[in-house]
Amino acid sequence: MDVVLLLGANVRRHRKLKGMSQEQLALEAGMERSYVSDLERGTRNPSVRALGRLADALGIAPHELLLSI
Amino acid sequence: MDVVLLLGANVRRHRKLKGMSQEQLALEAGMERSYVSDLERGTRNPSVRALGRLADALGIAPHELLLSI
Repeated sequence: MDVVLLLGANVRRHRKLKGMSQEQLALEAGMERSYVSDLERGTRNPSVRALGRLADALGIAPHELLLSI
Repeated sequence: MDVVLLLGANVRRHRKLKGMSQEQLALEAGMERSYVSDLERGTRNPSVRALGRLADALGIAPHELLLSI
């Protein structure tokens, strides 16, 4: 699976597990809601630091956002 | 540990495990040697797709480049 699609699917999965909206995750990660929406659909190629901010906002380790689903 | 420093340390560790030079890894991953050198020192914030190309070049799964050391 393409790594950007994998990231998007994992962000969505963990966000839903936490019961967070895209708005809440975007606020916590210091991003725009539309950016989180695009990222979950795999249409963004974020930086590793942005991935780290998303992991922090979701309360998980960065590598968990790249685990195969 | 900062996620970019963690990535750099993991790239260096796996590259050495494979007995690859920075030059060889850069060639395999379609990058400049100087970029790989900067990245290993944690002075670059690469995209997730670039992380994916490095993992492919090292023959490992992308998440392994973000595992805590």
